[in-house]
Amino acid sequence: VSTESVFIDALRAIATDPAARGLADDAAVLEIGGETIVLTHDMIVEGIHYLASDPPEDVAWKLVAVNLSDLAAKGARPRGALLGYALGDGQWDAAFARGLATALSAFGLALLGGDTVAMAPGAPRALGLTAIGIAAGPIPSRSGARPGHHLWVSGSIGDAGAGLAILKGEMEANDYLVERYRNPRPRLEAGARLAPIATATMDVSDGLLIDAGRMAIASGCAVRIELDSIPLSDALLSLRGDSPETRCRAAGAGDDYELLFAAEAAAAPNILALADEIGLPLSRIGAFTGGHGLSLFHRGDAVALPAKLGFEHRT
Amino acid sequence: VSTESVFIDALRAIATDPAARGLADDAAVLEIGGETIVLTHDMIVEGIHYLASDPPEDVAWKLVAVNLSDLAAKGARPRGALLGYALGDGQWDAAFARGLATALSAFGLALLGGDTVAMAPGAPRALGLTAIGIAAGPIPSRSGARPGHHLWVSGSIGDAGAGLAILKGEMEANDYLVERYRNPRPRLEAGARLAPIATATMDVSDGLLIDAGRMAIASGCAVRIELDSIPLSDALLSLRGDSPETRCRAAGAGDDYELLFAAEAAAAPNILALADEIGLPLSRIGAFTGGHGLSLFHRGDAVALPAKLGFEHRT
Repeated sequence: VSTESVFIDALRAIATDPAARGLADDAAVLEIGGETIVLTHDMIVEGIHYLASDPPEDVAWKLVAVNLSDLAAKGARPRGALLGYALGDGQWDAAFARGLATALSAFGLALLGGDTVAMAPGAPRALGLTAIGIAAGPIPSRSGARPGHHLWVSGSIGDAGAGLAILKGEMEANDYLVERYRNPRPRLEAGARLAPIATATMDVSDGLLIDAGRMAIASGCAVRIELDSIPLSDALLSLRGDSPETRCRAAGAGDDYELLFAAEAAAAPNILALADEIGLPLSRIGAFTGGHGLSLFHRGDAVALPAKLGFEHRT
Repeated sequence: VSTESVFIDALRAIATDPAARGLADDAAVLEIGGETIVLTHDMIVEGIHYLASDPPEDVAWKLVAVNLSDLAAKGARPRGALLGYALGDGQWDAAFARGLATALSAFGLALLGGDTVAMAPGAPRALGLTAIGIAAGPIPSRSGARPGHHLWVSGSIGDAGAGLAILKGEMEANDYLVERYRNPRPRLEAGARLAPIATATMDVSDGLLIDAGRMAIASGCAVRIELDSIPLSDALLSLRGDSPETRCRAAGAGDDYELLFAAEAAAAPNILALADEIGLPLSRIGAFTGGHGLSLFHRGDAVALPAKLGFEHRT
């Protein structure tokens, strides 16, 4: 048991308000004046969630995107944000502000307030953002999957992990994959449109396998994932080739910020029609069954789980 | 011009939504579903806003209190909070969680969510909290003071600054003053009751003089402060003696988290009656006039402004 999970358990014991959803959902859901407000606060830390060498404009984009990805998973439309900013080098700060303006404007998110603080020179920086969204309809949780429901994912998986490997010099350069690492696209439109259809939704931030396992645990089900159905980009396939190993590695990498959702089998035609309409692939990658646990298959054959399912304690 | 003020100006250029109030108010005001929601996000940094030797329970209290002080200045009732937490030593974290439970319960504030992140070992920690409040009525800004309005402050001034001096070994020990530094009391009841009466309100966080000067600038007025009217605690007076120097020093120290507000002269009887009712001193310490600038008087005589009006770049 890590000290971190002890701390989170202590917070969970405090967070008894229903709006906190047991701290199990990455976003709080508050009913105020007949409206449903979704609130999330995510931090990113230098050297942990981004590289010190990443362009500050992209760090700003990522800070906004990872928070909006939580709103997307709840089907909420972004309304505003509060920034918690640790000042650093003036040039870096100026570039961050430019990137922030770009990201906020791309997503129609208003900067509403926040705080800037001085840090000791050279201290690694922790940046936080609170995003506030308004839900249009019902809000999916992580826990609504049931045996027989299908598991779906948006976009492609593993690109950001490959982008990070490239930036670390572990892989051949590829602009598309680096861009997927630095500029994740929160799936806001898909999230809002899927909210009435999906039975459970979350975003893939720590890795497809670990996050699918979390959805299964929250839902009291087992989940079976077809490795060969996991959507991989052409860029990733051309650099790594197609193999169960490539697919396991992609499914255990983090930072995808795609939507992972469960839906009844009968919803499949609607989901595929939605994918066509919004121009974002939505792929069926598995199914929930009775029992518990996560199992992997490749072309019908059982495959052992990889050692790394994703990031467990980043956090 | 500091790099920090350049950064904040850049944010101000982005924050064009009326709910942001030009980033001039320390809290955002969002109208949703007929309710008025007040949002604030304040960070505290080890070595800057608190001492590494401060008990973690008190650091948690301060993180909650400084945010609620912003809600108090807007007359909002606390509804919930999101925590941005940098993990450290497990024992410290556990004590922080206990202090957080105490503070949240003292103020009826629900923990709704947030994020915990790992930091590099030894890195100074930055902790953030987003507080969400609901306003019962009109929301005062900083900018509503007009010539002829009086300037008022709640509680006593300079205690926290003296408490910090004690902890740094610069002053004789005194438990009351240290407690005022470590456990500030956000003036929520006073803030909610004053909202319909005050013409401008803010909390005193950086120092009475600098904050009063900011209110005057925002309101397009000058402000005159009577040093001898500034409320000082018995503890502070007994340790430092009463003199213009003591009073200037108290008025230039930060971390008071008292309410500073303007009101029409005719409101004085109501304000004094409210002070009696809620058991919190509310003291008239000056007045707004035409023109601009901050001037100090002591028993009717003009006094030069001290070199330090408060904390300017903490921030």
